[in-house]
Amino acid sequence: MVNSTLIRVRYKDTDQMGVVYNGNYFNWFEIGRVELLREMGISYKDLEKRGVFTAVSEAYCKYIKPARFDDEIIIKTRIIKLTETRVEFEYSLHRKEDNQLLAKGHTIHVFVDRNIKPISLKDTHKDLWELFEGQAKDNE
Amino acid sequence: MVNSTLIRVRYKDTDQMGVVYNGNYFNWFEIGRVELLREMGISYKDLEKRGVFTAVSEAYCKYIKPARFDDEIIIKTRIIKLTETRVEFEYSLHRKEDNQLLAKGHTIHVFVDRNIKPISLKDTHKDLWELFEGQAKDNE
Amino acid sequence: MVNSTLIRVRYKDTDQMGVVYNGNYFNWFEIGRVELLREMGISYKDLEKRGVFTAVSEAYCKYIKPARFDDEIIIKTRIIKLTETRVEFEYSLHRKEDNQLLAKGHTIHVFVDRNIKPISLKDTHKDLWELFEGQAKDNE
Amino acid sequence: MVNSTLIRVRYKDTDQMGVVYNGNYFNWFEIGRVELLREMGISYKDLEKRGVFTAVSEAYCKYIKPARFDDEIIIKTRIIKLTETRVEFEYSLHRKEDNQLLAKGHTIHVFVDRNIKPISLKDTHKDLWELFEGQAKDNE
Repeated sequence: MVNSTLIRVRYKDTDQMGVVYNGNYFNWFEIGRVELLREMGISYKDLEKRGVFTAVSEAYCKYIKPARFDDEIIIKTRIIKLTETRVEFEYSLHRKEDNQLLAKGHTIHVFVDRNIKPISLKDTHKDLWELFEGQAKDNE
Repeated sequence: MVNSTLIRVRYKDTDQMGVVYNGNYFNWFEIGRVELLREMGISYKDLEKRGVFTAVSEAYCKYIKPARFDDEIIIKTRIIKLTETRVEFEYSLHRKEDNQLLAKGHTIHVFVDRNIKPISLKDTHKDLWELFEGQAKDNE
Repeated sequence: MVNSTLIRVRYKDTDQMGVVYNGNYFNWFEIGRVELLREMGISYKDLEKRGVFTAVSEAYCKYIKPARFDDEIIIKTRIIKLTETRVEFEYSLHRKEDNQLLAKGHTIHVFVDRNIKPISLKDTHKDLWELFEGQAKDNE
Repeated sequence: MVNSTLIRVRYKDTDQMGVVYNGNYFNWFEIGRVELLREMGISYKDLEKRGVFTAVSEAYCKYIKPARFDDEIIIKTRIIKLTETRVEFEYSLHRKEDNQLLAKGHTIHVFVDRNIKPISLKDTHKDLWELFEGQAKDNE
């Protein structure tokens, strides 16, 4: 499954170079991730209520063309790796108008509990694990 | 007591107009507030550990001259009103280079507990109340 | 005309109190403002291309109930005052789920040129002025 | 040369997990970068006035321990690669209190002009090029 979510670049996102500030792309990755999970049947809000959090351990972005104010951006997100203790998401950002690839990246997340201690999702939340596993398999 | 804290405008703070984005001034107000409390002998971190939080109920900013990338800004903060249940901070921002007033504003905060329920600071945390009260008197 | 725009609270918007950080409401006001202009037939991007910018001179927010992660928020925006040199927008934020009013506020903007010098919109851009004026009249 | 810059974690930087939001580390990288340049004798503000901009082409962060509200963080920054057209910065973040490594990362920047077109810094701005080159050599 690849989730596609459309967002619009806001003035707040730009910097004085007239383009989107580099750090803000990671906010969009979050949007893609949360919406992919929602499409998989997992509300990140409910995940946290059940005591499962995902701590980011790595984040990477490759910037290809600058995103600009008022651009509509399609965030495409999928799961590319999964183990009992971590999950890796891959993202690509395209400008809607001309389908230009603007950026791509990935983030790695460790499953942790409320106190940010690593957990095995498989051992602690079998039902959630199976939802994640279904996705990861689809990507192989 | 008036707390003076020096910050520098970062690229991240600017927008494509070439000046600091209006919403970011409220982040600076937070810096002023936390540093005033520190100077008063109150660590906001410890305040939260003791179960006291301050929920913002109003925020206002008057923008006078634009702040720009790499400017050094002096944030001046003081308490202007205090009741058992709320506190009002007043801020002014000056450019260090020429002492130009850039903005001024205020925020009103309600004392709340961990569940964001209003509390009387006077009734629940007498020692903290007295530290706040000392400041508010000084401003009259 | 009252523009209604739906947004979703993102993790990035929250702070360690578990609710949306106060400064972020002003980012939502921007979204409301830009979408109201779009509905009025004015692209803020094009406005800037024509050399018209709107510098914020005042911003105010009254926080009523905290917005939380994953909430869907309806931003309602309208123009409440207009002169040749400035425009005032009024905002209200409701949680979509139960229509609870979360916050309301306003911002005042001065029409300026590329160098952030005040201009009379009426004198310099008659067609834009008429679009704004149409709205302001509707609100009286 | 390794630049060390001290910053403090602000409430705004945290998210509802009670730690600093992942995207905000890239804002700190910017601070480190700008302060390293300043220590090298290059004001990023002046760089832009001369028509030299640095467009981010890659950004990476490895998160080791969470940064928390009110932590003082030492940002260490150095240049690890340089060509005529691009420069790579490396960052490490330590908590001041106990020198715990919190994160490390790098960013790659392309030298561009006002229109975000790549330039050879060596060909266009010899004096700046020499300042950069001096640093890069020191790191070998």
